[in-house]
Amino acid sequence: MEQIEKRDHLIKEWIKEAAAISKNSFNNELIVQEKTNRTDLVTNIDKEIEQFFIQKINRYFPEERVLGEEGSGHQMTDLKGIVWIIDPIDGTLNFVNQQNDFAIMISIYEDGVGQSGYIYDVMRDELYTAYKGQGAYLNDQKLPRVEDKALGQGLVAISYRLMSKENNEAAKKIGKTSSGVRMIGSAGLETVHVATGRLVAYLGASLAPWDIAAGKIIAEEVGLLYTQLDGQPIDLLNKNATIVATPAVHKEVTDIYRNEIK
Amino acid sequence: MEQIEKRDHLIKEWIKEAAAISKNSFNNELIVQEKTNRTDLVTNIDKEIEQFFIQKINRYFPEERVLGEEGSGHQMTDLKGIVWIIDPIDGTLNFVNQQNDFAIMISIYEDGVGQSGYIYDVMRDELYTAYKGQGAYLNDQKLPRVEDKALGQGLVAISYRLMSKENNEAAKKIGKTSSGVRMIGSAGLETVHVATGRLVAYLGASLAPWDIAAGKIIAEEVGLLYTQLDGQPIDLLNKNATIVATPAVHKEVTDIYRNEIK
Repeated sequence: MEQIEKRDHLIKEWIKEAAAISKNSFNNELIVQEKTNRTDLVTNIDKEIEQFFIQKINRYFPEERVLGEEGSGHQMTDLKGIVWIIDPIDGTLNFVNQQNDFAIMISIYEDGVGQSGYIYDVMRDELYTAYKGQGAYLNDQKLPRVEDKALGQGLVAISYRLMSKENNEAAKKIGKTSSGVRMIGSAGLETVHVATGRLVAYLGASLAPWDIAAGKIIAEEVGLLYTQLDGQPIDLLNKNATIVATPAVHKEVTDIYRNEIK
Repeated sequence: MEQIEKRDHLIKEWIKEAAAISKNSFNNELIVQEKTNRTDLVTNIDKEIEQFFIQKINRYFPEERVLGEEGSGHQMTDLKGIVWIIDPIDGTLNFVNQQNDFAIMISIYEDGVGQSGYIYDVMRDELYTAYKGQGAYLNDQKLPRVEDKALGQGLVAISYRLMSKENNEAAKKIGKTSSGVRMIGSAGLETVHVATGRLVAYLGASLAPWDIAAGKIIAEEVGLLYTQLDGQPIDLLNKNATIVATPAVHKEVTDIYRNEIK
């Protein structure tokens, strides 16, 4: 327990330091590079924050491995032992264009099982945390378990890639059944908004482990389900089409996707 | 000028009072009613705030007319003289489901020409104002004129109705040309986010005068164009498919829609 509290204290300190790096960058020109395509960006600040976390982890927990968006541990083929999964800036397009709606995400997995997750909404100063079996928190306030709303009773976030692809009948059906569709552009923030009940679901087209890892722990601690779109478990070594939702919406959405696949 | 300053002072006071009404309601059960359909909602708070504004205007400016979302002045057939255009809560679905991302909007038109506009992002405590010929402001900080970015250089907000309708080729083309698509669900907030440069455009499917009026004044004061999707001027007595965008994006988008109509 002491060990867990020590980690928790350190991680929260590091996140605040990383947030300061991200906000200080607003005064300077960013160096923006394309990764796989025109809308998949990385900045010098994403890289700087990832390196900041890696140096801290190597210093305090030298035995432990790190999987990070900007290149750390991408050769990993298993999740044995303790693995830190890091997204230095989730929502880089928002970070570059909006200076808003981006998050810093950290989680710790042990033998593939999530132990603790952290998502920090930098500009709103909202830190979401969760500890396996001990609940989820927003700035130290415990989050209640979510109300099990149906799709017709709430708003859903759907990634633009799911909505705009050629075969998008399932996404359109889900959007039309819901009260309305929102697109924030940060998997982490869309997930915590489901956890607080602002949304009843978030659907991602192709999320990497670092997009998923912290949010999944937070989501599960408030009674949400977080799986692939067809209901299969998340694979934290590959990309996934994802849904995080209330149990009722999870059933509605995975049924729609399974029927579409048939 | 004295008269304008008096109005400005009063309106800002009223908006803060109205915001308090909206936030106090979070502690009580809302009375939610459907208007034209399941996703077109009105609450007792929308109605209470509209009545609050009407009483104030009737008391201080008894000669002037009011057009408000929740029923005031809907029989109006012209915009002669001074007309107040009011949206007590823009983004009612967000107000009900998220307690976030909604706005209070007021504007004053004289013979159909916008004189001053106010959009208050209640939960962020951000008041956007504009005065014809004198610029736009965010919490008393003057907003710079927008950079004339192209569609490929920024994020666009597109209403879900435009994106999901049967004949949605234009919307999909615009989304794919942009850096990414966002959906906030408040026409007023999507417009001010274009005015601050977070977005390069916002496209609305069917906006009423009270969705448009305040935002149009703010937008034009920072150098944006606000028209119907085919480039025609806004009609403030009817519903409009709309675009507010940088000049460059406005040309790209209206060209796409005009070609589609042909």
